[in-house]
Amino acid sequence: MTNTSEHSDEMRVSGPAIASAAGVPETRGASVSYDPLTPIVYLERSLRVFGARTAVVYGDRRLCYAELAEEVGRMAGFLESLGIRPGDRVAVLSPNTPWHLVAHFAMPLLRAPLVSINTRLAPKEVSYILNHSGARVLLVDPELAKPLDAERARWSSIEHVLELPDPEVASRPEARDYVVEAGSAPIKPIRSELDDELTPLSINYTSGTTGMPKGVVFTHRGAALNALGQMAAMSLTSDAVFLWTLPMFHCNGWCMPWAVTAAGGTHVCLRSIDPPEIFRLIGQERVTHFNAAPTVLLMLASHPEVPQTPFEPRLRVCTGGAPPSPTLLEGMEKLGIQITHLYGLTETYGPHVLCEPQPGWDRLDAAGRARVLSRQGVPYVHSVYLRVVDDEMRDVPSDGETMGEVVMRGNNVMLGYFDDPEATARAFRGGWFHSGDVGVMHPDGYIELRDRSKDIIISGGENISTIEVENALYEHPDVQEVAVVGVPHDHWGEVPKAFVTLRPGAQATEASIIEFARAHIARYKCPKSVEFCELPKTATGKIQKFRLREREWQGKERRIQG
Amino acid sequence: MTNTSEHSDEMRVSGPAIASAAGVPETRGASVSYDPLTPIVYLERSLRVFGARTAVVYGDRRLCYAELAEEVGRMAGFLESLGIRPGDRVAVLSPNTPWHLVAHFAMPLLRAPLVSINTRLAPKEVSYILNHSGARVLLVDPELAKPLDAERARWSSIEHVLELPDPEVASRPEARDYVVEAGSAPIKPIRSELDDELTPLSINYTSGTTGMPKGVVFTHRGAALNALGQMAAMSLTSDAVFLWTLPMFHCNGWCMPWAVTAAGGTHVCLRSIDPPEIFRLIGQERVTHFNAAPTVLLMLASHPEVPQTPFEPRLRVCTGGAPPSPTLLEGMEKLGIQITHLYGLTETYGPHVLCEPQPGWDRLDAAGRARVLSRQGVPYVHSVYLRVVDDEMRDVPSDGETMGEVVMRGNNVMLGYFDDPEATARAFRGGWFHSGDVGVMHPDGYIELRDRSKDIIISGGENISTIEVENALYEHPDVQEVAVVGVPHDHWGEVPKAFVTLRPGAQATEASIIEFARAHIARYKCPKSVEFCELPKTATGKIQKFRLREREWQGKERRIQG
Repeated sequence: MTNTSEHSDEMRVSGPAIASAAGVPETRGASVSYDPLTPIVYLERSLRVFGARTAVVYGDRRLCYAELAEEVGRMAGFLESLGIRPGDRVAVLSPNTPWHLVAHFAMPLLRAPLVSINTRLAPKEVSYILNHSGARVLLVDPELAKPLDAERARWSSIEHVLELPDPEVASRPEARDYVVEAGSAPIKPIRSELDDELTPLSINYTSGTTGMPKGVVFTHRGAALNALGQMAAMSLTSDAVFLWTLPMFHCNGWCMPWAVTAAGGTHVCLRSIDPPEIFRLIGQERVTHFNAAPTVLLMLASHPEVPQTPFEPRLRVCTGGAPPSPTLLEGMEKLGIQITHLYGLTETYGPHVLCEPQPGWDRLDAAGRARVLSRQGVPYVHSVYLRVVDDEMRDVPSDGETMGEVVMRGNNVMLGYFDDPEATARAFRGGWFHSGDVGVMHPDGYIELRDRSKDIIISGGENISTIEVENALYEHPDVQEVAVVGVPHDHWGEVPKAFVTLRPGAQATEASIIEFARAHIARYKCPKSVEFCELPKTATGKIQKFRLREREWQGKERRIQG
Repeated sequence: MTNTSEHSDEMRVSGPAIASAAGVPETRGASVSYDPLTPIVYLERSLRVFGARTAVVYGDRRLCYAELAEEVGRMAGFLESLGIRPGDRVAVLSPNTPWHLVAHFAMPLLRAPLVSINTRLAPKEVSYILNHSGARVLLVDPELAKPLDAERARWSSIEHVLELPDPEVASRPEARDYVVEAGSAPIKPIRSELDDELTPLSINYTSGTTGMPKGVVFTHRGAALNALGQMAAMSLTSDAVFLWTLPMFHCNGWCMPWAVTAAGGTHVCLRSIDPPEIFRLIGQERVTHFNAAPTVLLMLASHPEVPQTPFEPRLRVCTGGAPPSPTLLEGMEKLGIQITHLYGLTETYGPHVLCEPQPGWDRLDAAGRARVLSRQGVPYVHSVYLRVVDDEMRDVPSDGETMGEVVMRGNNVMLGYFDDPEATARAFRGGWFHSGDVGVMHPDGYIELRDRSKDIIISGGENISTIEVENALYEHPDVQEVAVVGVPHDHWGEVPKAFVTLRPGAQATEASIIEFARAHIARYKCPKSVEFCELPKTATGKIQKFRLREREWQGKERRIQG
């Protein structure tokens, strides 16, 4: 174990430093009439009010709120015993297990930003994030730990790697076992010690339009408000039973770890998307809410074991990444599932707008309903600033036709990109966060996306930066020029396709290009097909990716991504 | 009209000045990732999202959100044209009319603290509040204006008095008519210009334990968070239809003007408590929520015109001021009404705790249910700090038996008393707000009040300071010594009774004492009976009011007040 005194304070994340760089005011301290907002108080309250209620279900295991709080206190106490102090980063790489949920409270309790890493990333990408975030500890699922063994030598800040035992997977005897080591740790009481609500709470790495992933910093205030907003939007009460189909590593599960806990509801954890298991859990646990990309919903609706009668109680499901199609909506209605379409980005703590239903919509036919529900909608109640603007930051007319960029501002916009003031300034130009997404404003105030940021593919709910894929392929010795675009795919919505011009005389095949990509980036980011050709260019020599996209989507109804 | 330039900036309320006196941190300014919290954004959003939905119902009149927003903008624009600037105070004296609701947004929009005055106060008390708050404008209901005519000469800061026309009451031709004057005012856009979320939003005068009423300062942040907390606790959605039985002048209607608007629900306004009209409105408007003191609920349950079948949809009703009795609960259940018991003070924006129901409570018999529901409960999700402490600020054991004082802290504790730093410091001693109420902490974290602050009577939901009543009676030339205590009353719960020792030779009668009181204080505060006697005292000569109370309550089951 490393001597903790070696870790200097300068390395710790300072909220005020990031905040003041981003022009955010300083807020401090608690007093009689002021408490810094933090999701920690939601656990504090549910521990007190709902101590004996079921907080977590995972396989045969059930934790009541008192037990959940104990696990949170133990994880925090253990990490503290390892030397973790406020401002230190702690990384977690895990499916939606109870441990991952516990980490969503333990790190905030320690005021140590949580770095929850996408489980689908390639080992090299994980290493990049660990090093960039400067995380000191990694808590990792045994199944996800193995592929990282060869990477460990490249980790520059990680001092401790502990594996989180899970009854569903084999533990590795050579690993440090979290449960064994944490067993004797002091249990830290669940009590907010936050002195500044703009303290960073988590860093979520996201594929932007350029190069390497960027670390989106959430604050305690933003997460606490977003959780209240989710409670209001989803009508979460203590009867809520939330099924964890949405990955927790996605924008901290859209803040649902904190929202469901605030309501005193039940988290039903889930390692993987397995339709029969999902059907079983919905019935057995009387699930009331879950969130999933349309891809997952389609998988459920078309599964041979899909129930023939609607679920009871009715389910509320939020979906994003692509608008729900009429077929999907119909399929969901048959299952007793009410769909809410929403849209946001990691930079907005997940959802920023939702398609709030209006009176009369339920009287529309299937196509009409799909048309209105394909809009991304209106802001949440806790964060209302959203515009669609032209290049000079003027609002486009609210005519449902004039396109502009969607920009946001307010309490659920990130504090900034971690250790990247230039990228933060670029994203915040003009005093608004620039989504890069192109949309229209309808006369009734609902936005509808018309094109995504041109360099992002959303495949099965995951963002893929085409530029990142291109950069990987440029490392192939035979590749002279490459352009990656999203092409239609029945299951994933769209998938990356590479258009490659080979160096003169080179002999690379489609298979060898794809194989090369797999060695460098996550499998879901790799092109599913490769076409060798000359790339269309402008007069000045700029590659015209939009021409490639147009050709591929010809004759297909392009579903605008949400 | 007064020249507005004469009004100096020094007279304006400064949030930071009050805040820093109370040790509250400074918070400032908006940025990309930070917006000052304010209930104004809730109207801003509902205007955008629910513009055509019914916002207000009042008699035959209906306002959609666009119309409500227009009235808010007009009132703000008009007051601005009168010279009202941020920090100026504007007073309203009105029943629960749409104007009163409009004022709850217009003044916050102007950043001019709203002083909503108890409509049951005597003219002299109204004058005290107008003068103490330094209000520059009074908006008043014609019916309530008349008794104030003789007082106007005593008003030191009021520059404009405008009467709010109401189809249900006659306008007075001699008065300045708000609608006539505001008709041509510019309409201020609904857009928050707040630069500091701790800016005072309203000043609510409350009868404390000593002397004159004190002005409780709410902030924009506190009101915005409390509104979100109410939404969560009451499951307010855009289907909510809220009937205004609770006076808006009570802690700004427990923040419900902002909570219902945030949800995009409907406000059903009501001039007075008239059971047949309430039954009619519940049915016609499909009311889902209202709040009322047990006195009002009893009045409804025992009314000859009470419906014989439960309301559909079911109603959620919050009650406070006294715990619901088994009889009341039974009566409410027959009406399809689910009761939530809550407790708080003006100093906590209204409710601070609520009796969150636990699984299994619905299986208890009527007496058992009343027993658990007679507890005041647990903190709201947005403000969780509450303790029951002994004289040295140590927590009493959570045994449901050991009594202590209920103290609170957090985002729904007032900023302080307006222009009264000594009273603020006294109330905030030890870093907690002292309620003065005596309670126990149950093992499950629920508080239950065992005695009110000894010098407060709660009569029909209204606070009465016994000391204020005593002070009024001490002005009677025949009174040598007086003690006022609450005595049981079938309808009001309790009412004030005066124990008087006359000066030697004096001949005052019970009737003359009561008449004297009525000339000085609100009718509901006046003693309902007077007993002439020697007062019980301690060895050191201190009057033992508890002995008088004990005698009066002997043989009666004392219902502990909430």
